[in-house]
Order: sequence, then structure tokens, then C-alpha cells
Amino acid sequence: MAQKKQAEPEKPEKKKVAKEGTKGENVVLIGRKPVMNYVIACITFFNAGEKQVVVKARGRAISRAVDTVELLRHSFVKDLQVKKIDIGTEELVREGRKSNVSTMEITAAKAGSK
Amino acid sequence: MAQKKQAEPEKPEKKKVAKEGTKGENVVLIGRKPVMNYVIACITFFNAGEKQVVVKARGRAISRAVDTVELLRHSFVKDLQVKKIDIGTEELVREGRKSNVSTMEITAAKAGSK
Repeated sequence: MAQKKQAEPEKPEKKKVAKEGTKGENVVLIGRKPVMNYVIACITFFNAGEKQVVVKARGRAISRAVDTVELLRHSFVKDLQVKKIDIGTEELVREGRKSNVSTMEITAAKAGSK
Repeated sequence: MAQKKQAEPEKPEKKKVAKEGTKGENVVLIGRKPVMNYVIACITFFNAGEKQVVVKARGRAISRAVDTVELLRHSFVKDLQVKKIDIGTEELVREGRKSNVSTMEITAAKAGSK
């Protein structure tokens, strides 16, 4: 039994785009890149056998997170369901100043998964 | 009984900001103005006795909708609960071209209301 264990790949190629969450969730963190990059990151997760992804964004990237899920749902993963949407606030300290930034998490899962 | 019926005001002062929905919902439509304007529109509804408001936005204004609800919840209406968040896509035709724009609806209600 010298074979390497073939688990699901923990880190897809796009490291910066898609990070593994703390709970083993499949998190795609939305930044300033084109929406398509994040759509591909999600598709990569689904192709690797994952049943759901969590799309996270902060501040102005929030609208891009919605774009990502909507594009994914309408054009690529037809049986995708939005399971949960959470919004919240994070406090950032930048140059000694406190500022609040809104956050959003969209959990999207393939139909048939729990 | 010549008195005018004193129902809840159907149209608050800020007409452009806050519109009455088709189902009698209290809709605040998010545009390009500062977040505080929309927060005030929501507060106006609550002060008029309404138990919930629906904050709607499209495209890039989506992040401002989240900002509005978060600011409202943390600073002004302490017992505010986010009841429902829906996302969707609308098809726009502009100059003969079709384009899809993401939409978002956040329903926020005061605690204790159904």
C-alpha cells in the first residue's frame, strides 16, 4: 500500500481566489478581479466533487459576489440553489482609524445535496 | 364624520428614495446617494408604525443596500432582524443590447413582529 492517498484536492490551482475555510467549507473569496474568475473557482470546486461552495465578500465586492452566484446559477450549474445568505459587519482599523465594512456570505449548493 | 381618514402615510417625504411596493410593502430602493439617505428612509417607515421594510437594489448598489441594513441595525434600530435576503437577475435592454444585472432584496423587520 505505497500508493498516495487520493483525497479531494484541498487546494485548487487558484490559491488566491479560492481558499479552504476553517470548517472544511469551500470558500471563494471575492476580490477585484473579473467576475468570471470567481465563477471558474466555483466550478473548479464542483468539478472536484464538492456539493456546495461559500462565496464571501466585503464592501464593494459584495455586488460582485451576487454577480458570481447569479452567473454560475444561470449559465453553468443549472441545478444550483442558494441555500443561505448572511450579511454582517466587520470592524477594520486602518491607519489608526476604525471603520466598519459590510460583509456577505452566500452558500450555494447543488440540488440533491443536503 | 367629515374628518379625513388618518391612515398611515402612504408616501413619505422622500418620494424618490422610498416607494410603496405593489403588495403594500415598504420598499426602499437603493440608488447612488449616500447610504445615510436610505437609512433615514427606513427609519421614516418605522417611525410611521411600519414593522418591516424591504430594501431593494440592483447592480453595484447592492453593496450599498447591505451597508444600509447593517448601519440601520447597528446604530439606529437595535431590535432589527434580517428576515429574508433574496438575490436574482434582471434582463435590461440598453441601446439594443441585452445585459443582465443582479438584484437583491433584503427584508428587515423589528423584533416581535411576525
